[in-house]
Parts: sequence; C-alpha cells; structure tokens
Amino acid sequence: MPLTELDIIKTILDNITYKGEVIKGIGDDCAVFKVGDSYLTVTTDMMFRSTHLPDILTPFQIGIRVVTATVSDIAAMCAKPLGIVISMGLPKVERGFLLDLIKGIDCACRRYSCPLVGGDTNKAKELTLCGTALGITDNPVYRGGKVGEDIMITYNVGRVYCALEILRMRDRGEISRKTFYSLWEEYPDIMGKLLEPTARVKEGLLLNRYVGSCCDISDGLKKELFYVGNFEISSKKLLSAVPKDVIEFCDRFQIDPIHAALNSGEEFELLFTTRRCDKVVQVLKEGCNGEAWRIGKVVEEGHYLDGEELKLGGYIHRW
Amino acid sequence: MPLTELDIIKTILDNITYKGEVIKGIGDDCAVFKVGDSYLTVTTDMMFRSTHLPDILTPFQIGIRVVTATVSDIAAMCAKPLGIVISMGLPKVERGFLLDLIKGIDCACRRYSCPLVGGDTNKAKELTLCGTALGITDNPVYRGGKVGEDIMITYNVGRVYCALEILRMRDRGEISRKTFYSLWEEYPDIMGKLLEPTARVKEGLLLNRYVGSCCDISDGLKKELFYVGNFEISSKKLLSAVPKDVIEFCDRFQIDPIHAALNSGEEFELLFTTRRCDKVVQVLKEGCNGEAWRIGKVVEEGHYLDGEELKLGGYIHRW
Repeated sequence: MPLTELDIIKTILDNITYKGEVIKGIGDDCAVFKVGDSYLTVTTDMMFRSTHLPDILTPFQIGIRVVTATVSDIAAMCAKPLGIVISMGLPKVERGFLLDLIKGIDCACRRYSCPLVGGDTNKAKELTLCGTALGITDNPVYRGGKVGEDIMITYNVGRVYCALEILRMRDRGEISRKTFYSLWEEYPDIMGKLLEPTARVKEGLLLNRYVGSCCDISDGLKKELFYVGNFEISSKKLLSAVPKDVIEFCDRFQIDPIHAALNSGEEFELLFTTRRCDKVVQVLKEGCNGEAWRIGKVVEEGHYLDGEELKLGGYIHRW
Repeated sequence: MPLTELDIIKTILDNITYKGEVIKGIGDDCAVFKVGDSYLTVTTDMMFRSTHLPDILTPFQIGIRVVTATVSDIAAMCAKPLGIVISMGLPKVERGFLLDLIKGIDCACRRYSCPLVGGDTNKAKELTLCGTALGITDNPVYRGGKVGEDIMITYNVGRVYCALEILRMRDRGEISRKTFYSLWEEYPDIMGKLLEPTARVKEGLLLNRYVGSCCDISDGLKKELFYVGNFEISSKKLLSAVPKDVIEFCDRFQIDPIHAALNSGEEFELLFTTRRCDKVVQVLKEGCNGEAWRIGKVVEEGHYLDGEELKLGGYIHRW
C-alpha cells in the first residue's frame, strides 16, 4: 500500500528520539529556539518544477515564489525575517533562465527585508528549490486558538482555487487556448495571486501583540482550520473575505464559492485567533492599509460550518 | 556553452542587490547573523540520490550523511550545533527504507547534539534531501588564514579518495564483484570513512580559541587550500596525515598518495590555521583524544607544494 503524507510524518515523529533543547520542534509553521532574550524561528520549504510550480510561472515568478512560500511561515509566527538560504538543483538551464530566477529571488528578498545569505547549487534532473528562512521575535505566535477567541483571516481567500481551476480547464481541454488567455486577462487579480503571491510579513508583525494564535494558509483554509482547534465558521461571514471576482467566477463556472474559499491552497494569508477583532482591524488599516475578516470563533467541541459538521478529508498526498 | 558551477555562483553574486544586515553572507561555510550577544551560523546542503550518494550506502547511512555533511559546516565555523531541518523529496519508498533513513538521521542528530526540529516532505522523482543546520558561537571562525600562520588538518586525509577508487574500479569492470567485496573487507577504515563520515563538531569547539581560520574539507584539500589563501605545503608533512591503509592501498594500485590526499572530497576533516600548533595538538588530545597535523604555512604569495606551484584546476561541475 502506498505511504500517505500522514504515514511519513508519523514515521518521522515516532522515530526521532533525540529532542535536544528546543522551544518548539516539529509541528508548527516554524521550529523555535531561544537565543539570548530572543526567539529564533526557522522553516524550510522544498519545491519541484513538475509538482509545485504551475507551468505558466516565469523564472522570475518562480524566484518570487520560493522566497514567498518560505517567508510566509515566518510571517505565520508573527516574526521578523532575518535571512534565507536557498539550495538549488538545476537541470540544463540557460543563462537567461538563471538570471531571471535570481532576480525574482532578489526582488522578493528586498520586499520582505530578508536577505539571501547562502545556498547550495547542484545538478538535478528537474528544477528543485529548497528555501530555509530564519525569523526573530520576542513573542512567537503558535498555532492553536483558545475557546472563545474569534477566528479571522487577512485580506481575501479563494482566488488561487479559481486560478488553478482555469489551468485545470485548459489541461482537460474544456477551454481553448484563446479562452484560456482571455480568462487570464479577464481575471487579473485571480491569476495574479497564483503568479505573484505575497507573504503577510508586515501584517504578522502588526498582529503580534493582539493575537492568540496564527498560521498561514498554505494547504487551504479547511485544513488549516483544524490546526486552530475546534471551530464554528459562518459561511455568511466567510463570504465577506471572498472577493467579488471570485464570486463572479464561481457563478460563471458553477462552483460553490464557499468550496473555493475552503479549498484554496498557497493563499499565504494569515489565519489567526484573537479577542480583539476591532483593534486588529484598526492596527492593520493604520499600519499597512491592511484588512482582516472575522469568519467564526473557537468553540469547546466540534468543527462546524453553519452548524453542520465539517470533515477534514480532502486530498491526501500518496506516494 | 554549458554553464559551469562558477558561472552560476557568479550570476547569483552579481544579481543579489539586497544585502540586509548580516555579519557574513554568501561565501563562507556558513552565513553569520548577530543575535543578542551571540553569533548564529546557518548552512544548507542539498543532495540527490543519483549524483551525491554512492549506491552502496544503506538508507541508515544516507540519513547519517545528510546530517553529517550539513553539520560539518557548523563545525567549520567552530560553532555549536543548535538544530537542523531536513526537507525530503521522496520517490515511491517502502516503509522500511523510510524508517531506516529516519533512524540514521536520528542517530547522527544525537551524535552531534543537533536535534531535528522540522522539515518538509514531498513527492519527487528521486530521493532528494536538503539539510539546513543552525549553530551558535560567541566567536565565529571564518575561512582565510593570515601570513605566518601554520596550516593544519584534523585526523587524516585520503581515505575517501581510495574508497571511491574501489567503486570506480567496480564500475569500470576492472575488478570482479568478488574482488570488490574482498577489498571492502580488506580496507574497513577506507570504506568506513565513505560510508559513515564524522563531522568534527567536538574538535571545532575545542579549537575555537586557538585558530585564525577554519573550513571543512568537502571538495578536497587542494580546492579548500585556495580558500585559506597563499600557502606552502610540504608533501613530507602532508604524508603524516595520510594513514597507513591509504599508503598501502595507493602503493598496491599505483596511485600517488599525495594526489589522493589532495583530491579526497567529503572528508569532513577541519582545515585550519593557527599560531599555536602545540597547544592545538594538546587541546585536541586532552579534549577528545583527537589529532591534528601541521602540513604547511600561510605565505605572502603563491600556492606551493614542495616549492612547486600548485594549480587549482581539477574537476569543475558543468551543467
């Protein structure tokens, strides 16, 4: 029987006997160490050309993505990026490809004030990138909300699902190449969030004092909600975080926008819990013209969407 | 024209414009940050099954190797390991393989007091491992010796070259399968250094106060010597660091032992410079029953072996 992602993680957890002195080991967005009076956070992210990077990404956008996906876990701890190292496995590449990849990395590093400080280059059968980012904070924010806290997300959710749906329609031959490009033109923000996502670093830093828990949305809101704990979500409230273009797109292609919102991965939005909703909204607005939406709350028991039980299930990676 | 490793590194260095606040960026064994009163060192190492891992390695030994190769760069800064994250790209693997891989990782983590604190697992076409290790020190030791300092190496050098030569003879069909296994039995320490190398963590910590520069031997002594600076090496002295089994093996297969010593990669010995040879020898002996050998000194100009110029050249990775 093929191993599932969960089998693999369980095998790792069950067989690592040496734990050392660490504040937080495997199991959150970042591992956390105490260094002097500060907390150091570290996270790693590996991606392969064929499985993690949509074919429409330019080399520049691939560079942006590897930094963004890695740094997003630093943002999820509400920590400040310190630096990143990137190991690269390169197949036969042209100088132009490499140059654009590096420029994309540099662009994102500047955006997040997170310098590239090292790496490793190797020959490989396909483009392979592994980023490891460090962050620093005096107050690391973990996953897992407390009963009674409100659950909120930054900005919006659902666009990446729609963008991938456009790619799926192309790949299944349901739309012509021409329609594909015209959809791309018609929904620039939907495609934009897939092509050039943003890690919510500024937002995480602004939120640090006002939140009880935080994670980033990389595997889809539904899966991440289970990390928060027990919850009650309202689809009406969730819809306030679903932007108009997603509503319109879903209407046009007969997709349930709540399904899109719950199953949209690599959004890199922050999902957090707080007792200070109003303050959070104000701080984000004033600090970076940011937004956050209350979508539900942490409850004693169960996982509910509009009073009905939500099951985790969904896609499980199999080997 | 295919890109060389140097082209790629140059492209990276020339196009990274955002430098941030970092004590040491790209270009040493580790990057270095200041955190409070401490210096944090970070290094990353990527390896692919087909290009970096000899086929005779067991899954357990692969686990040992990924930790050792990464932590060796922490040792090269004479820093103390803090923790490691390992991203894994896994092809269809059996549970037994995965279990042994994890046990090897755990075993090496314990040996170096360097806990595994995180990672990422992905499907991949071939086994791909990327380790990133953190270290901490109040005195990071960099590459690059000062004129007049003695050049020393820990323990011994040359065995990995011989072990790979045994593999090469097998692959070229120059020896039978039976001879291959009997050579393996005849030269246990030669094969052992390839199969289960050791990062010189304890030695690096003991040396911290007494050395002017340090790096580890991963690409072969010859290449690493050029990082030290200008040098004058004596083959007679170097031979004191070449163990008897290497001398015997080289004699038997008509290999120049100095060539083997200079071109033996992934030795993970420390190559360092010091003005206190005797103290270093004493400290290593008392601290961990360790050894180090003086092989030459840092000079004003040039790169000399027995008075003749040594050229870098050698193998360059091409893409």
